Parts: sequence; structure tokens; C-alpha cells
Amino acid sequence: DGDAAAGKAKSATCVACHGAEGKVSVPMYPNLAGQNVQYLNEALRAYKKGTRSGGQAEIMKIYMAPMSEQDINDLAAYYASLKP
Amino acid sequence: DGDAAAGKAKSATCVACHGAEGKVSVPMYPNLAGQNVQYLNEALRAYKKGTRSGGQAEIMKIYMAPMSEQDINDLAAYYASLKP
Repeated sequence: DGDAAAGKAKSATCVACHGAEGKVSVPMYPNLAGQNVQYLNEALRAYKKGTRSGGQAEIMKIYMAPMSEQDINDLAAYYASLKP
Repeated sequence: DGDAAAGKAKSATCVACHGAEGKVSVPMYPNLAGQNVQYLNEALRAYKKGTRSGGQAEIMKIYMAPMSEQDINDLAAYYASLKP
């Protein structure tokens, strides 16, 4: 299972687009705070595998490339844990 | 621009997966309440055009097929207006 505290520590590269605490300053990107953990897990894995396209999928694929299964679990747990 | 009240009236087909008021009961789907209007507009158009894949994109493409530009503006305004 994901560890939200570990996910926070791994979220440094996410912040530029998805904002501190998962609320964006750039309105073309989605807020992540409070999103469903299962959806986040599925989406991050799809980006990594290249099975999700559209929007900034090419950029997400690059960011997800170095992430392990545990990293993704942790990131999903972290963003799901934040208050929207 | 989008009209949130009109969007609410057009959201009947969205509710089964995205929940009443944009909060899901099925955790594999994303919450939409309070999502950024620009992101929602982009995502819905990408589904309609078939330029977004992954997750339930094939289903979203079917749901978006009958939607006009104004319908999409209204739906995006509606979901962005909801409290997360």
C-alpha cells in the first residue's frame, strides 16, 4: 500500500505543474488534492506504460519513467490524502 | 462561456460514474467537483476528438459524441463550480 508521507517526499517534481498540496496555479492542469487513490494509481501507471494519451501525457510519461510501483503507490496515497 | 446551471441540466449521463455533485462512489473514476474549468474543457474535447486514451476514454468518447461546444463549456463550468 501507499505511504502518504513517503509520497510527499517523492512529489518534488510534481509541484511545478500540480502545485503545492495538489492545487494548481496553472489552470490547464488538474488539481490532484483529494482525488481518488485508485484513480490516481491507474492514471499514473497508464502514463508510465504509455497507454494514456492526451493533455500532457508525454510529459507525464517522462516523469513516471523512473518511478517504481512503490513510488506510484506512495504518490497516489499522498495526493489522495490532501484536502481538496 | 459555460453556464453552470445549464451544465447541471446536461450532466444526467455523467452521474452514474462521476457521482451526484461530482463526487464518485466508484473509486476507479475521478472526482470532478472543483476541478479546473480549463482542464475540464480540454479533457472533454480531447475525449470527443479521440485524442485522449487510457482509463475509460472509449466510454467518454461515446458520451461526448453528441455534445456541442456549448454543452462542453456548460458541463465544464458546472463541475468546476461544485465544492470538492
